[in-house]
Amino acid sequence: MKVKVEVFLRSDVFDPQGKAILNAVHHLGYHKVGSVQVGKVFILDVEGSKEEVERQTKEIADKLLANPIIENFTVSFL
Amino acid sequence: MKVKVEVFLRSDVFDPQGKAILNAVHHLGYHKVGSVQVGKVFILDVEGSKEEVERQTKEIADKLLANPIIENFTVSFL
Repeated sequence: MKVKVEVFLRSDVFDPQGKAILNAVHHLGYHKVGSVQVGKVFILDVEGSKEEVERQTKEIADKLLANPIIENFTVSFL
Repeated sequence: MKVKVEVFLRSDVFDPQGKAILNAVHHLGYHKVGSVQVGKVFILDVEGSKEEVERQTKEIADKLLANPIIENFTVSFL
């Protein structure tokens, strides 16, 4: 079963990558872009029931894929 | 209008990050995880019609967010 984990900086944490990309986008002439958020996305292929896969994926995200102090993550099934 | 760009390595390109995370996941005891793919995700806030936003976002992804030689990207509306 394929499951997706998306990890973004919390909204109260400054996103320097997003800011840098926004500047580059404007530099290329795309002035209608108001903001850019940058995150990480993981696709895991996990065996098991939907409940088991969801539980394990959340544990893996919490322990390994996201830094709970500055990041939030969401889990969704593909 | 919020639009999401997801960037992944092409399937014929080796994903060292994914492999490293898979090893770490197994090391933590999650042996039912068969594979891990790692990508980047961007959320852009862009003014304009849906067609205009889609066209501009694809151009930005092609020029700036993805390396067309080794990566694929998808664009979706939030």
